[in-house]
Amino acid sequence: MNGRGIVYLVGAGPGDPRLITVLGLDCLRRADVVIYDRLISDALLAEAHPEAERIFVGKAPGEHSCHQEEINALLIHHARAGRIVVRLKGGDPFVFGRGAEEALACAEAGVAWEVVPGVSSPVAVPARAGIPVTHREMAAGFAVVTGHCAEGDRQDWAALARVETLVILMGLTRLPEIAAALLFHGRGADTPVAVIAQGTLPGERVVVATLGTIAGEVARAGLKAPATIVVGEVVRLRERLRRGGSALHDLPQPEVVGALPLSPNTW
Amino acid sequence: MNGRGIVYLVGAGPGDPRLITVLGLDCLRRADVVIYDRLISDALLAEAHPEAERIFVGKAPGEHSCHQEEINALLIHHARAGRIVVRLKGGDPFVFGRGAEEALACAEAGVAWEVVPGVSSPVAVPARAGIPVTHREMAAGFAVVTGHCAEGDRQDWAALARVETLVILMGLTRLPEIAAALLFHGRGADTPVAVIAQGTLPGERVVVATLGTIAGEVARAGLKAPATIVVGEVVRLRERLRRGGSALHDLPQPEVVGALPLSPNTW
Repeated sequence: MNGRGIVYLVGAGPGDPRLITVLGLDCLRRADVVIYDRLISDALLAEAHPEAERIFVGKAPGEHSCHQEEINALLIHHARAGRIVVRLKGGDPFVFGRGAEEALACAEAGVAWEVVPGVSSPVAVPARAGIPVTHREMAAGFAVVTGHCAEGDRQDWAALARVETLVILMGLTRLPEIAAALLFHGRGADTPVAVIAQGTLPGERVVVATLGTIAGEVARAGLKAPATIVVGEVVRLRERLRRGGSALHDLPQPEVVGALPLSPNTW
Repeated sequence: MNGRGIVYLVGAGPGDPRLITVLGLDCLRRADVVIYDRLISDALLAEAHPEAERIFVGKAPGEHSCHQEEINALLIHHARAGRIVVRLKGGDPFVFGRGAEEALACAEAGVAWEVVPGVSSPVAVPARAGIPVTHREMAAGFAVVTGHCAEGDRQDWAALARVETLVILMGLTRLPEIAAALLFHGRGADTPVAVIAQGTLPGERVVVATLGTIAGEVARAGLKAPATIVVGEVVRLRERLRRGGSALHDLPQPEVVGALPLSPNTW
């Protein structure tokens, strides 16, 4: 094995390409091979070296995709050939999305690997929509869970109903069942809930309602995945926070990233 | 009011200065005034313009500090004077640390503000220590809470004891009580626990034990705040993940940040 080969598991952040880390961008620019998912922006891929090999391993919903074993094998193959491999993943590599499995596969194969944490969607997507997940008087903590079927079925909704701020990823299609489970376990029907689709991106859309009404409102609005669901009193802060006005769209583009699009102010 | 004035609440990330976002670094470089806490690295402060005003508003444990009202007033004052103000906060601005209050103060004063999310310590610090907070078979979710007295007393430890991965920030001095509360509410005494001090920084130290033994082990090791506590089966992954070897310390420095120190591999 060539000693130089290594796999960097890099978090691309929640959508807006400017939210990648300085270290993550640096790894991307040094990569010989970039292995990436759906939802990784073209602007970020353009930051890799022109001659770097770009390998797409994502899937559109319902489509065939690479199996996880094939992705693991790809990572190991290219690292063993002495290449700098960047595995570019949405959000943070270790928040869902099988990053832990990929790191384990490298470790078990004796391949050098490293994780470069990213800005995680469950915190950043609500934040950019005006919802802080914590607030001294409203939420001294938050929980993040997947609503995705296989793992969502395992959730302890009775315990989660009692957490002050609950953030659910990959839960849009199961929102009616999730809301029902939280109501069943005693969360009030008037608890505010926000659903944020295309968070931090130009197409961002936000629906705010209550636990009792959110499933209907989201269906009526026709929101599409990926979406972030936030349950808790902190959702009320959005109205109070928008008063001062968000102005990120006025900021010139960072010079370190050439052609990245700007997020609009969707409030 | 000068129309240009704005407050950017910028997340500096978990410690390693290379984990700031591209957008956060860009804001920092454009700032007229940087208002920062303890634990913000000199390397990041050096990225601001040489003539930018740097105002320290943090406190060492036990020392006098600026009151939150004074910090809010500073932000508003400088923005109203037409300045670009960067409020640089450790981790993510909206995960504890009063970022939500600062945004509200700006909004209520009619001052333009924006949040630039950062890499959040409760995910990134465990990650860099080899502990993914989620894993498909071990943890389909995680909770993040503060162990700090005023807010920690409000925690619903019965519910938190049932969350697969529990991350506690600002809980080091209360670790014995926290462990006792989780044990009382039915979490097994053999549940693995890791405590990570100075996470992602050159002085990083990690103690791994069980819920039954962690308080004693941490006291014996003499760990000092700030520390991140991780409770759950995912802590076991650290041993399996280190086999392949972490190699981040071998990566050259990002060119976009001049003089940032490198993290060592502390495994």
